[in-house]
Amino acid sequence: MSNPSLLILAGDGIGPEVMNEVKKIIGWFGDKRDLAFDVEDDLVGGAAYDAHGTPLTDATMEKAQNADAVLLGAVGGPKYDTLDFSVKPERGLLRLRKEMDLYSNLRPAQCFDALADFSSLKRDVVAGLDIMIVRELTSGVYFGEPRGIHKEGNERVGVNTQRYTESEIARVARSAFELARRRGNKVCSMEKANVMESGVLWRQVVQEIHDAEYPDVELSHMYADAGAMQLCRWPKQFDVIVTDNLFGDLLSDAAAMLTGSLGMLPSASLGAPMANGRPKALYEPVHGSAPDIAGQGKANPIACILSFAMALRYSFDQGTEAERLEKAVEKVLADGKRTADLLGPEGGTPISTAEMGDAILEAL
Amino acid sequence: MSNPSLLILAGDGIGPEVMNEVKKIIGWFGDKRDLAFDVEDDLVGGAAYDAHGTPLTDATMEKAQNADAVLLGAVGGPKYDTLDFSVKPERGLLRLRKEMDLYSNLRPAQCFDALADFSSLKRDVVAGLDIMIVRELTSGVYFGEPRGIHKEGNERVGVNTQRYTESEIARVARSAFELARRRGNKVCSMEKANVMESGVLWRQVVQEIHDAEYPDVELSHMYADAGAMQLCRWPKQFDVIVTDNLFGDLLSDAAAMLTGSLGMLPSASLGAPMANGRPKALYEPVHGSAPDIAGQGKANPIACILSFAMALRYSFDQGTEAERLEKAVEKVLADGKRTADLLGPEGGTPISTAEMGDAILEAL
Ligand SMILES: CC(C)[C@H](C(=O)O)[C@@H](O)C(=O)O
Ligand SMILES: CC(C)[C@H](C(=O)O)[C@@H](O)C(=O)O
Repeated sequence: MSNPSLLILAGDGIGPEVMNEVKKIIGWFGDKRDLAFDVEDDLVGGAAYDAHGTPLTDATMEKAQNADAVLLGAVGGPKYDTLDFSVKPERGLLRLRKEMDLYSNLRPAQCFDALADFSSLKRDVVAGLDIMIVRELTSGVYFGEPRGIHKEGNERVGVNTQRYTESEIARVARSAFELARRRGNKVCSMEKANVMESGVLWRQVVQEIHDAEYPDVELSHMYADAGAMQLCRWPKQFDVIVTDNLFGDLLSDAAAMLTGSLGMLPSASLGAPMANGRPKALYEPVHGSAPDIAGQGKANPIACILSFAMALRYSFDQGTEAERLEKAVEKVLADGKRTADLLGPEGGTPISTAEMGDAILEAL
Repeated sequence: MSNPSLLILAGDGIGPEVMNEVKKIIGWFGDKRDLAFDVEDDLVGGAAYDAHGTPLTDATMEKAQNADAVLLGAVGGPKYDTLDFSVKPERGLLRLRKEMDLYSNLRPAQCFDALADFSSLKRDVVAGLDIMIVRELTSGVYFGEPRGIHKEGNERVGVNTQRYTESEIARVARSAFELARRRGNKVCSMEKANVMESGVLWRQVVQEIHDAEYPDVELSHMYADAGAMQLCRWPKQFDVIVTDNLFGDLLSDAAAMLTGSLGMLPSASLGAPMANGRPKALYEPVHGSAPDIAGQGKANPIACILSFAMALRYSFDQGTEAERLEKAVEKVLADGKRTADLLGPEGGTPISTAEMGDAILEAL
């Protein structure tokens, strides 16, 4: 039997350098744990634009469709700011999400104990925090039509459409309820049902799926603005949060920042099962391409490495191996190893991207 | 000459009780500072629905159009959760904003020194914080058409439309630049120009207005998700933030919560100048109707009282009197007077809504 396949799209900015460390880790699992992967590299985002004039070629899209899992670094950078909307680096990522139909974006917001003091929040507010934000990723205002900029009289008008179908809401709700059952058994759904009809439908469908299929899970609803407040006030009240594409974008970023562990946070974007039973899947760190520090060996590879741990768990059913990797990361942090972003005001000596990767290899 | 007119719409939940304290303050300015107002009361939200079957009658709408300023308490409550979308309490507030064309919503996020320890953020992150969020309030996804829930095949589909015209963006941008000139001279504009064309237009128009009319103001742009992160990380980097209706809803609530002073924060919603030169204006606290504590004398009236201070400043050109009132509030806090919401984990004895109002009167 052939090895499972991984498509690596390192992308822009710090993407390539953090992905280098992930490759070392992947190699280790092949050598030491008999878990070999067939790895292929390709381009996405600005890097693909530079080479091919498009942020994602059809050929790469097809490889992604056929891979057992895709690992992505990061996309974007100031160099591409003036590009036309249709070829911006982000369009490559959005095309992957849409065409692979990756509707369920899992964004854990976890506070690593060794880093709790690093949050702008008080220690007791964040220490031990472990919530999972499930963000709908293939619909809503990101993809709704009509969209664009047109003229009315002598004015420009910008339009986007927020659109959700019942089945789009139902499937991401199921994904959230399933996760909740394996965690704290609580789901909070967030929308603006008080001002948006798409939010009214969201609330109804989540409630219906709950009542029919997951009555054992505790479900609550919150307006997204109140949700943003509550995340800032007392995030530990949440277990799983399920929300739409745009609210999920803001809320998961805010939550990630609150943990003080932004450079540590992975994400998984999952779709329907393929013929081999594995879900279509893309894994990427929550942080961006950080062009200001790119190429200097300063980036923290942990978020990207933990994204590979999520791949082990969600694509390859290797929960034990995922934990092994997560434990290794914890050990390295507990030992006081820090990349530059993890140094508090007290300072200290940072280690490089590669040194962090090596330290994790050693801990493995 | 007749006195300027105030229309008071106390609304639901704690609205009436906090507004009672504002009325005492209004009375004081008439008696002691020769600043008398003609005050009229009317209904909005659930209270209006209970009396008339609609959250805002045409008669009230007309009074609001003709008042020199409107003061609003709060709308909404669980009692109205099952009402049809079109008659929900919120529709009353949204109709006022839309028909009075109150396009510029000023939401100061200030940290009151006496309350800095009350924030979930570390003291040095919030102490002295003073930012102004300018939220577009009459357009965007709150009001765009088409909207609604319809059937496609046997599926329900929920639709809302995010729509911004050039002139809608330009006027709120001007409002933000004007404010910045009287403060720290810095504006940060937030949108999702990387995924939404309406955000692309937003960014362009804000930049154009800046270059043509306010080149002296420092302008930056940020994606709204990064903005949410930065507000949580180091809010003091901001002076004025300008953003659209929906992002403004989430970001201003998050910012308000971060200050630890939620029960203290007022807001002003301003439109174009009327025949008498005053802007159309509605003032309301940022907090909601808090149905869980309504009618118990526990609510904090300060946000509503400070909303009246904003009215003095922005509608009646009484900046000195506004400061007098703001100073009185600060004094009462410095004296250790606290309503229940302002007591930290250390506890203490709370004073009632009316006692807080009286304390402020005394300090005046
Ligand atoms: C890069 C950008 C298109 C993307 C998004 O808006 O979804 C990012 O912010 C994210 O959250 O993954
Ligand atoms: C009550 C509701 C309609 C309103 C809004 O969404 O604008 C509120 O959250 C606010 O921010 O004033």
